[in-house]
Amino acid sequence: MMKSYVILAGAMAAALLSSAAIGGSHADKALADAVKARKAQMQLYAFNLGQLGDMAKGVVPYDAAAAKAAAYNLAALTAMDQSRLWPQGSDEMGVDGTRALPAIWENGADVMAKSEQMTKAAGFMAAEAGNGLEALQAKMGDVGAACGACHKAYRAPAN
Amino acid sequence: MMKSYVILAGAMAAALLSSAAIGGSHADKALADAVKARKAQMQLYAFNLGQLGDMAKGVVPYDAAAAKAAAYNLAALTAMDQSRLWPQGSDEMGVDGTRALPAIWENGADVMAKSEQMTKAAGFMAAEAGNGLEALQAKMGDVGAACGACHKAYRAPAN
Repeated sequence: MMKSYVILAGAMAAALLSSAAIGGSHADKALADAVKARKAQMQLYAFNLGQLGDMAKGVVPYDAAAAKAAAYNLAALTAMDQSRLWPQGSDEMGVDGTRALPAIWENGADVMAKSEQMTKAAGFMAAEAGNGLEALQAKMGDVGAACGACHKAYRAPAN
Repeated sequence: MMKSYVILAGAMAAALLSSAAIGGSHADKALADAVKARKAQMQLYAFNLGQLGDMAKGVVPYDAAAAKAAAYNLAALTAMDQSRLWPQGSDEMGVDGTRALPAIWENGADVMAKSEQMTKAAGFMAAEAGNGLEALQAKMGDVGAACGACHKAYRAPAN
């Protein structure tokens, strides 16, 4: 499980930023679709991570099966190929409705490294979330840090 | 690959509709969050399936790597545990912004069977999408049919 996630993470990272340039009138639609899809991706991260966070904080009782399901979902999401979600020109300067900074497309190696950190953290969470509340709690920090690292560096502040 | 998807599909199906009842003022928020998350799930289906469909129809040139990536994404999405996306009460009668018919919660076995069909069709697509345009095209019908079967039975018409 872990291993395949890490391998897929590499594939995803390698594909990141490789989208072909898109020109013409289809471009706006394609960029808008990509922004919509990556927001959906983030939405599903938040939905699954929220369930884990609620258990970690004691907002809801720990449930091993539910924790494992949410963590596997999160790991599966992070392992997906996301290259098509981040086409050139889909930054906050180029399209509406995104806080993605242009720096994303100027720092490919760092973005890939941060993406791999997220995939790894989610993979370790998937391996541990079903093993009790303390095991889950022990993995929350790395997941949160991985989310935050990318948001801090590459997301514009909310208005 | 195929095998693990099918096994996960079974786990997902078994979990479907098993959400605990939620009461009180948190209920509306929980239902709204679930609707938002499942729309994100559908959005990512559409985004990835759209790429495959565009290739199948010749709208864009066939690209083996891109086809495989989109198909693997679709398969990973269908294999996710979606039980938390469909809590009791989150039908079109209970909450705004969804076309999910109450019949979903009255036909658990059929919903599960349709869900498994989708997971299987996406898994076969993942296995074939990288093997040439004709191989991809040959699998589109089953994927589309699986989407349509659930939408036809369990989604209210658009207004």
